Amino acid sequence: MQPTILDRLAETIETRKHADADSSYVAKLLHSGHDKILKKIAEESAETLMASKDGDAQHVVRETADLWFHCLILLAYHGLTPADVLQELERREGVSGIVEKASRDAGEKG
Amino acid sequence: MQPTILDRLAETIETRKHADADSSYVAKLLHSGHDKILKKIAEESAETLMASKDGDAQHVVRETADLWFHCLILLAYHGLTPADVLQELERREGVSGIVEKASRDAGEKG
Amino acid sequence: MQPTILDRLAETIETRKHADADSSYVAKLLHSGHDKILKKIAEESAETLMASKDGDAQHVVRETADLWFHCLILLAYHGLTPADVLQELERREGVSGIVEKASRDAGEKG
Amino acid sequence: MQPTILDRLAETIETRKHADADSSYVAKLLHSGHDKILKKIAEESAETLMASKDGDAQHVVRETADLWFHCLILLAYHGLTPADVLQELERREGVSGIVEKASRDAGEKG
Repeated sequence: MQPTILDRLAETIETRKHADADSSYVAKLLHSGHDKILKKIAEESAETLMASKDGDAQHVVRETADLWFHCLILLAYHGLTPADVLQELERREGVSGIVEKASRDAGEKG
Repeated sequence: MQPTILDRLAETIETRKHADADSSYVAKLLHSGHDKILKKIAEESAETLMASKDGDAQHVVRETADLWFHCLILLAYHGLTPADVLQELERREGVSGIVEKASRDAGEKG
Repeated sequence: MQPTILDRLAETIETRKHADADSSYVAKLLHSGHDKILKKIAEESAETLMASKDGDAQHVVRETADLWFHCLILLAYHGLTPADVLQELERREGVSGIVEKASRDAGEKG
Repeated sequence: MQPTILDRLAETIETRKHADADSSYVAKLLHSGHDKILKKIAEESAETLMASKDGDAQHVVRETADLWFHCLILLAYHGLTPADVLQELERREGVSGIVEKASRDAGEKG
């Protein structure tokens, strides 16, 4: 099977881990540390919300792409890959998975 | 090419749009409206942050899966698909794309 | 009654509304527009979470101060004052208010 | 000086620390643990963003009140009081404080 865009981006991010901080955006962010990566995820998540409230579908696409991209950086930070997340989604697939998620939520206060 | 897990989940979400609100978690959330979907994205984003601060990689995987899953629901709400986001990521792929993102950020106040 | 620090900051922010963007941080942010203010609230909220996960109480104080300060800027953006928020909190004060909040939450999906 | 609404709420929250979880919303949240409090702050922050994007000033007031209230619970969790945050804001008051915040930000990547 051919690598997908998520795999290819993950590989690129991986190569940035040991690159000079000045060599790319990703290298810079990885060198800035854990909290900076998390702060970017919070920011991109908020920007997705704002684009969505504006009803601007193309902006939602761009902000979701930003959000997923920074999730890939966080996964790399933890030594994880997009395949780990996709396998988790496969595990939950189907009615049973959706029911599981709903039951977990029902047990929470929200 | 075979549909990926993201495509399959997007199709499942699509079928839930016209299903009874009581029939599944996704149907319920789609019926609850735009703000409820956005609130879930904010929540899952925060839970990803907390799992990451805990240094619990398997928890990061589960929360990132939750976050991406709710992004798929938001995309469906806007009549979009995961392919739209993956194409946007492909468009940015390579050094040029990463430089573009960095330049956009440099122009922002942060 | 003497004005509190929240009132004094709100007055300072008010005077920045018509000041040159280069004259202060607040003037610059107010000129940057609605989404930039909201993005700062999302950021400061995320930084409060991270400081709290680190168990660093003095950092929690600084980030909460940042968060409240940016809330004051948002209130000013909407022509509101901290007194509006404090009056809302007074309205809810006491057991009845806390019960009200709990009942509202119980009715939500979370 | 008379205690303000923030002081009074903080005192009420303090008394809930040792109360039965079923006795009030605050007691329940404090018993649910650190992550649940943080999740509420993320939620209320997102709801403030959405109310603001809707341009609904009265809703902004209610969500900001919710956000500040949950910040008081977080402060109590860390053994802190609203006075700690207000003193931090006083410390930064005036041009020097605003300049300090701006300089701190200038040193960040955003």
